[in-house]
Amino acid sequence: MSDPIAGFWAVIPAGGAGTRLWPLSRRSEPKFLHDLTGTGRTLLQATWDRLTPLAADRVVVVTGRAHADAVAGQLPDLEAACLLAEPSGRDSMPAIAWAAAVISARDPEAIIGSFAADHVIADSASFEMAVREAVALAETGRVVTIGITPTYAATGFGYIREGDALGVDGAPSGRAVLEFVEKPDAERAAAYLASGGFRWNAGMFVVKAALLLELVDRWQPAVAAGARALAQQPADLESIWPTLTRIAIDHAVAEPAAAASLMAVVPATFDWQDVGDFDALAGMLAGNLRSGVEAHPEAPRTPIVLGDPSIVLAQDATGLVVAASGRLVAVVGVEDLVVVDTRDALLVVPRAQAQLVKGLVDRLADEGREELL
Amino acid sequence: MSDPIAGFWAVIPAGGAGTRLWPLSRRSEPKFLHDLTGTGRTLLQATWDRLTPLAADRVVVVTGRAHADAVAGQLPDLEAACLLAEPSGRDSMPAIAWAAAVISARDPEAIIGSFAADHVIADSASFEMAVREAVALAETGRVVTIGITPTYAATGFGYIREGDALGVDGAPSGRAVLEFVEKPDAERAAAYLASGGFRWNAGMFVVKAALLLELVDRWQPAVAAGARALAQQPADLESIWPTLTRIAIDHAVAEPAAAASLMAVVPATFDWQDVGDFDALAGMLAGNLRSGVEAHPEAPRTPIVLGDPSIVLAQDATGLVVAASGRLVAVVGVEDLVVVDTRDALLVVPRAQAQLVKGLVDRLADEGREELL
Repeated sequence: MSDPIAGFWAVIPAGGAGTRLWPLSRRSEPKFLHDLTGTGRTLLQATWDRLTPLAADRVVVVTGRAHADAVAGQLPDLEAACLLAEPSGRDSMPAIAWAAAVISARDPEAIIGSFAADHVIADSASFEMAVREAVALAETGRVVTIGITPTYAATGFGYIREGDALGVDGAPSGRAVLEFVEKPDAERAAAYLASGGFRWNAGMFVVKAALLLELVDRWQPAVAAGARALAQQPADLESIWPTLTRIAIDHAVAEPAAAASLMAVVPATFDWQDVGDFDALAGMLAGNLRSGVEAHPEAPRTPIVLGDPSIVLAQDATGLVVAASGRLVAVVGVEDLVVVDTRDALLVVPRAQAQLVKGLVDRLADEGREELL
Repeated sequence: MSDPIAGFWAVIPAGGAGTRLWPLSRRSEPKFLHDLTGTGRTLLQATWDRLTPLAADRVVVVTGRAHADAVAGQLPDLEAACLLAEPSGRDSMPAIAWAAAVISARDPEAIIGSFAADHVIADSASFEMAVREAVALAETGRVVTIGITPTYAATGFGYIREGDALGVDGAPSGRAVLEFVEKPDAERAAAYLASGGFRWNAGMFVVKAALLLELVDRWQPAVAAGARALAQQPADLESIWPTLTRIAIDHAVAEPAAAASLMAVVPATFDWQDVGDFDALAGMLAGNLRSGVEAHPEAPRTPIVLGDPSIVLAQDATGLVVAASGRLVAVVGVEDLVVVDTRDALLVVPRAQAQLVKGLVDRLADEGREELL
């Protein structure tokens, strides 16, 4: 392990409903609070574990007020002053700007790196190298993103179009960013994948805190003003928070910064997962990124289990069993089926249709079944 | 409704594990104690409801000691003296002979009819007509069975080969029985179905109690002696019971009686179900006898629900959901899938593989998981 990076602060926006992982992920206990990797650490804890070697105790978590206690419980070493609880969700820009303002007040020279709490990155060493390069690039006054190398023609992510290598010391793989591209259709996604000059945008941004606030001030002045006010007068949270525009950092800063030639990208060499749905979860737990690539003909006819395998009784069955209620789960003669067993709700869906779970949760919401959301 | 049949006693052997209906059916709460029809009456109660119009209060239930309290609870009008609790399961002949001996002691001229507690018969009027014919035939000194008209080439039932019409008054459809045939292979079953001269053996027997005891005495003297002794000295149950040979009435009496030209059959005109597995249960609840015949192209893409439909959330899904735990059950994008949700165990299996459930229960038994059996 190398030493932490001087002046580097990590920001963890811990939000997102993880609706497509219902009934495991709930409003009251969203995705980042769950151990989805079967390692004994939740996604939030794993994110903390990845960042503290780089930032030491300079980690700020921004989360919804409803989850602040759970976050504090899962991260006992997190300073109370470094846990920012949002009165309501206003997307990523207000959250990150607030953190930047708080950090900037404590350390005006700080470089911050923002990393979602619900992503999975197994290769910490490669992650660490990418962050170190990103920090080196950020030192030159750029907004730096870490771009994921696409493994298939995904339509669920935005893309980053790379420009020329930048030749910055300490950041040998850093390149300019020509453009942030919204989630493409399948045809464009395939073209991006084929061209090789595109990366997935995983929302990882590294930038000087002061520069970020300056850019937010330029493009979203209400957010910058609100964030600075929050850092000065935390007691006024309730009145200030609603003045912050609801917007994602991608639209607020990354897109205009790319257009202004202020963005750089470090290509990630590590595997990355946002574990968007149960198909992705099954693929990740099987050690692969996508269900399509894992069909080893010699693979045992046994489902992937998240939870206690001793309560799963399978016979000639494949797919994913999430055993989260303590009850016995028996699956017989099913192919690539997802069974999620929780205390008060059960889900059965084919892996290939895992994305339909969001619609199901929408129906529950429409029917007013709040207790199940 | 017609009047009850003078001198007619109904016997309900309430046994059978219903293993292929696990985890709904358990050792502690077998199939006959469950409402499998969604009518609010258990199979045992529905059997009672079918028989009391014919037998009034002359109904005797024979069940395992472990289930005697549950049976009494479900049948509040059952006389205590008419509830016979077996110390252990010894198959159907000892159970029915015991009932016959008890009934014979109270009513030497009694005609008894034995009907399993876990079969489903929707058309009570046709059932009643068949029993009345069977009683008329039994008056002539025959052992009478009610034979089910086969609807497919079943290999899971024994068959009855019909002989000539008997022309008995009050039993216009009664015929001689040439043979009881053991469960056939698929080829022979198809031939039986094609020939038209075969009925399924559903274990429904109507016979004078005294004649039955006489025949048992002839072919299974230990059972007859034990049954008579039990009727005389009920206090000696523990010592007498183990002396009764473990044998089914089909082998003990029906087969030799057919060979001795003592058997007659009344063809059933009613639909009948033994609800052997979840495929049969789904078919029955869908109003059909077999999954193969229910594929209406215009059928809604919605699963059959046993239990509370308000806790089942389905989307583009077919099959069967047994909602027996109170939890929400969400099924999405599955075809002909069985999902059985109970308090402590969950089963997921395709309808077409429902018969594999027995093997699963065997595995649980092998693993010593008694609490789940």
